[in-house]
Amino acid sequence: MSKIGIAVVGFGYWGPNLVRNFRASPEFDVRFIVESKPNAQANARTRFPEVETSADYDAVLADDGVHAVAIATPTATHFPLAKAALEAGKHVLIEKPITSSAHEAQVLIAMAAERGLTLMVDHTFIYTSAVNLIREKIKSDELGELYYYDSTRINLGLFQADVNVLWDLAVHDVSILMYLIDKKPTKVSAHGIAHVNGHPENTAYMSLFYSDDFIAHINVNWLSPIKTRQTLIGGEKKMIVFNDLEPTEKVKIYENGINLNVDEETSDKLKIGYRLGDIHVPHLETTEALAVMAGHFASSIKEKSEPKTSGQMGLEIVEVLEAATQSMQRSGEPIEVGGVN
Amino acid sequence: MSKIGIAVVGFGYWGPNLVRNFRASPEFDVRFIVESKPNAQANARTRFPEVETSADYDAVLADDGVHAVAIATPTATHFPLAKAALEAGKHVLIEKPITSSAHEAQVLIAMAAERGLTLMVDHTFIYTSAVNLIREKIKSDELGELYYYDSTRINLGLFQADVNVLWDLAVHDVSILMYLIDKKPTKVSAHGIAHVNGHPENTAYMSLFYSDDFIAHINVNWLSPIKTRQTLIGGEKKMIVFNDLEPTEKVKIYENGINLNVDEETSDKLKIGYRLGDIHVPHLETTEALAVMAGHFASSIKEKSEPKTSGQMGLEIVEVLEAATQSMQRSGEPIEVGGVN
Amino acid sequence: MSKIGIAVVGFGYWGPNLVRNFRASPEFDVRFIVESKPNAQANARTRFPEVETSADYDAVLADDGVHAVAIATPTATHFPLAKAALEAGKHVLIEKPITSSAHEAQVLIAMAAERGLTLMVDHTFIYTSAVNLIREKIKSDELGELYYYDSTRINLGLFQADVNVLWDLAVHDVSILMYLIDKKPTKVSAHGIAHVNGHPENTAYMSLFYSDDFIAHINVNWLSPIKTRQTLIGGEKKMIVFNDLEPTEKVKIYENGINLNVDEETSDKLKIGYRLGDIHVPHLETTEALAVMAGHFASSIKEKSEPKTSGQMGLEIVEVLEAATQSMQRSGEPIEVGGVN
Amino acid sequence: MSKIGIAVVGFGYWGPNLVRNFRASPEFDVRFIVESKPNAQANARTRFPEVETSADYDAVLADDGVHAVAIATPTATHFPLAKAALEAGKHVLIEKPITSSAHEAQVLIAMAAERGLTLMVDHTFIYTSAVNLIREKIKSDELGELYYYDSTRINLGLFQADVNVLWDLAVHDVSILMYLIDKKPTKVSAHGIAHVNGHPENTAYMSLFYSDDFIAHINVNWLSPIKTRQTLIGGEKKMIVFNDLEPTEKVKIYENGINLNVDEETSDKLKIGYRLGDIHVPHLETTEALAVMAGHFASSIKEKSEPKTSGQMGLEIVEVLEAATQSMQRSGEPIEVGGVN
Repeated sequence: MSKIGIAVVGFGYWGPNLVRNFRASPEFDVRFIVESKPNAQANARTRFPEVETSADYDAVLADDGVHAVAIATPTATHFPLAKAALEAGKHVLIEKPITSSAHEAQVLIAMAAERGLTLMVDHTFIYTSAVNLIREKIKSDELGELYYYDSTRINLGLFQADVNVLWDLAVHDVSILMYLIDKKPTKVSAHGIAHVNGHPENTAYMSLFYSDDFIAHINVNWLSPIKTRQTLIGGEKKMIVFNDLEPTEKVKIYENGINLNVDEETSDKLKIGYRLGDIHVPHLETTEALAVMAGHFASSIKEKSEPKTSGQMGLEIVEVLEAATQSMQRSGEPIEVGGVN
Repeated sequence: MSKIGIAVVGFGYWGPNLVRNFRASPEFDVRFIVESKPNAQANARTRFPEVETSADYDAVLADDGVHAVAIATPTATHFPLAKAALEAGKHVLIEKPITSSAHEAQVLIAMAAERGLTLMVDHTFIYTSAVNLIREKIKSDELGELYYYDSTRINLGLFQADVNVLWDLAVHDVSILMYLIDKKPTKVSAHGIAHVNGHPENTAYMSLFYSDDFIAHINVNWLSPIKTRQTLIGGEKKMIVFNDLEPTEKVKIYENGINLNVDEETSDKLKIGYRLGDIHVPHLETTEALAVMAGHFASSIKEKSEPKTSGQMGLEIVEVLEAATQSMQRSGEPIEVGGVN
Repeated sequence: MSKIGIAVVGFGYWGPNLVRNFRASPEFDVRFIVESKPNAQANARTRFPEVETSADYDAVLADDGVHAVAIATPTATHFPLAKAALEAGKHVLIEKPITSSAHEAQVLIAMAAERGLTLMVDHTFIYTSAVNLIREKIKSDELGELYYYDSTRINLGLFQADVNVLWDLAVHDVSILMYLIDKKPTKVSAHGIAHVNGHPENTAYMSLFYSDDFIAHINVNWLSPIKTRQTLIGGEKKMIVFNDLEPTEKVKIYENGINLNVDEETSDKLKIGYRLGDIHVPHLETTEALAVMAGHFASSIKEKSEPKTSGQMGLEIVEVLEAATQSMQRSGEPIEVGGVN
Repeated sequence: MSKIGIAVVGFGYWGPNLVRNFRASPEFDVRFIVESKPNAQANARTRFPEVETSADYDAVLADDGVHAVAIATPTATHFPLAKAALEAGKHVLIEKPITSSAHEAQVLIAMAAERGLTLMVDHTFIYTSAVNLIREKIKSDELGELYYYDSTRINLGLFQADVNVLWDLAVHDVSILMYLIDKKPTKVSAHGIAHVNGHPENTAYMSLFYSDDFIAHINVNWLSPIKTRQTLIGGEKKMIVFNDLEPTEKVKIYENGINLNVDEETSDKLKIGYRLGDIHVPHLETTEALAVMAGHFASSIKEKSEPKTSGQMGLEIVEVLEAATQSMQRSGEPIEVGGVN
């Protein structure tokens, strides 16, 4: 197989980015854009006149020149579309989140394993130079013991009809967290409000608990007047501020911290002071994450290797989101991750 | 009574600011700085050589020239110091929070009422031009129905020995919230981590629930590499960003919002879009809030009127903090406000 | 003529943007990309496989399906390429600056006038919603008498081989200035340094003088560690800060100003104080300026009307740049605009 | 002599800061505040009731307990006040700029030398940790060859009656420049506008030329809607951005620069590209510069050593300002530094 024939399913918000990146990749040959809505179909024809647009998913799956499909449709449709593709013997890339439920994800993982097909989820942040640099700093123990991960991901966003804001925005932080640290959350607690009747929660707060003193907190919102993408990672030795909206200073590493001192006046008591240090802002490569992701999908297929954002990782993320959603419905009651049925 | 004789008790972090502002006020005569620690006492003598410094609180309370005391000592000592002052017939101003427990606050409120004395809490933000401008915008319905209050108040701060970070930082947001909106929270849920053994929580997240769809969330932290003081207030018609670290653009009013539209392609479904509008940044007077607070304390005493930050308000804030602390101990279990015993 | 057949000449930095926008416009049909460098040609074929790429400019000019050419090549080549196009009876759009000298611009203007062809320069800023909003504020006298225009346009940029930094960056400010105010500069003074032997100036400062007290100053630099695109416009009643790097708050209107007061202590002397007011940040449409420019080129051709960024405007801008370059060579000696031979 | 008895002359904008810092210094004893305006005198008595306020400068100079005077009055009065003090055998500290003319400065320098008295100018920036850190980076050749110094120092400021904006604001940059680099400017060119009749220039631009390719540019303005204090220092190896309004990130060191490459397509030509690197933000001590300045004045007196901001340095700065003012009057004609009569 020289080039991987791929069909991109769904030409809404994200689909065009996938088409553009797969077309720019020397590994892929974009054979079809699959889209049934007339408006989106017309849009696809205008932007990519040289790619065939089809509304017939079954026919596309029957095409031998199609070796893989990339699914960028609403979350609820991920499972049936991916299932059909795996049944047709195609490798599958799915937009985040992998499915609407952990059960569905488990089915897809088992199907892909049986058939020796690659199942990968497009958790794009895992392919950014920023997140990989932070991961290195943590792995090399430059930050020391980790204290917390605190993320704010808010903007005036389109309300999604089928998923709440956790599945749309917090999903990014859950994937980043999973990639950065080696431990899984034991329990999750979340609060949220829908504000508009009949719609899912647009404002939500989520805390993740671990077997030790590390804590993670995620603040997501489709109703904010300002766009914010800021994550703080506090460590014993150093702390990081990751501001994804900064064009050139995305990751700042602070040599700040706390010190334990003996208080002069009450010598029996431990006093905690703080320490201010230099700040380091490493230069980051500006490669587009989606291009890296596309390359990784290609090599996972060719080398039959487990992708970094495997179906299994996608499942574990969905387990966290399911627990959070259940907690939200029970007024923040802490829910065990993996324990939602 | 021409000038109100006042004694400032405690010359730590906040005491010097009180002394400076009471001295600058034409209504007050600062008679004593009460301080027992030798270092702080020496510091008081150097900075205010013309004010008498005393370690004998009882003698100060016995002085007829002292009409009022301002208490700026650690929280745990507020109650006994204020009780003694009220018993001696003095008006009392207490640093926030009023006391360590709702019960103590109730005792002080009753004592002050019986004796016809003024009991006021120094919730300084209530006297800033920023918070008062935001209150006006809300009261005049410029923002429409309120959706949420979301505040981040973090920095590399001194760990307090006797209170957790909620009592040190979230107390500000609880007071601002209480002043801005007319409703009280029904339940509170909070999570937090201590990180250092034997010390109170330095990182905490708190959600406040109301009888309607409004939600408030407060993120406080003594372990952040960057200082943040940012509050978002989301309304149906307008939204506000209050950034207290901005020297000249503290309050920004966004004419942004959401729109309910009928989706063209699926006309049976309501689609929610957003609307971007102008931003207005009102000029704010730069009066020091503490000076306004001092003037308000004087007029409350002279006119025997209820202060804006009365003992009762102080009590209601402590009730929220007590509920939050209990929730934190019970892994985020929602606790009814006013129901902690 | 239904669609205007156009050829884009030069596929370097700017050419691809022109191709993309002319292709997205319903008024144009992009017939050719003219490019002789093999690398750039290959790049054009990859990005726009459906557009014919040619190295033979004469053949393209001989094609009757080509009604207009858009020239995006190095400045020194603008004149011969545009001259040939006008001779072939084509409408011409030229990247800024129009030519390397005022004389060349005059020749092109005369040729276009004789032949009834449209000659337009792509001074893109004139088609942005930001600059048009500022122009409205000035024209409606909202700012009062204008005091100054002060612009900083710096970054770590590619050194140009054939033109100095004034012709590359200050050209934008000169065009904006010309569009915003109704007066022309009388004299220009400039200083600059080349730093690298045999290369044109990479750092330059330019002052523009008028027949009244208005002054303009432009700071341009290819050697700055940070990118800045900030323009201050000071008026008697209001002032504007135009920061082109701000995604959502590009134009801020300050109701600040100066007041003339009588000094209390020395009543015979006029004292000047300042006044701080509200700030207003108008919402701007996010239309791409190049799309607006393309539409304007089409309507100028079809209606045979003078474009906003006409050859004449292009000439006047080049006259300012010529005077500035001469001043720079004479250590800042003020040079009359239009007086360079 | 244990403590140096000092009199502070002038209690306007800066005087109170001098009094506060000399009082906080263990080396000084503030004996008098000299002030003749009734309002300012009353203000001095309120803020420093324990310091004697006097309107009789001669009597103060006659007091043997006064060993030094600090002059913080309008620039035009510096010379007569300093002359009288030196005649009375007092050490002298003068607010910047030292005098209104180079000639006056020369007289003071000669008088101080004859009498063995310390003559120092309060160029405060020279005592900041930020400027000293930058100096170290330059002296250790970390930046490589210096290319330019480009400073913007603008805000809505009080118009001064007796000096133009160069003498009020650019004076800071001239002093910083002189301290940072080892060379003196050969020529100066400046442009400025007064805008208000009968008042000195409120907006000015100044370029400083050297015997090599280094260039400095200073942009000062009392009419800006926003306050800016930003200096860029470009070097061959590294570049610095010094933003004095940043609370914690005042000095940023960029490992950016330019590279000389051979262009692939036209191999005979040198192509200049740029290089992006890490950013380093060193932690700075937060000592108040005025306190450091006061200590340096004390040690210069006691050790009879030349202060860093000596009368000679003050003279050289005034020579630059004189040349700039003359250039401004001659429409930017380059004027030799030291050559103004």
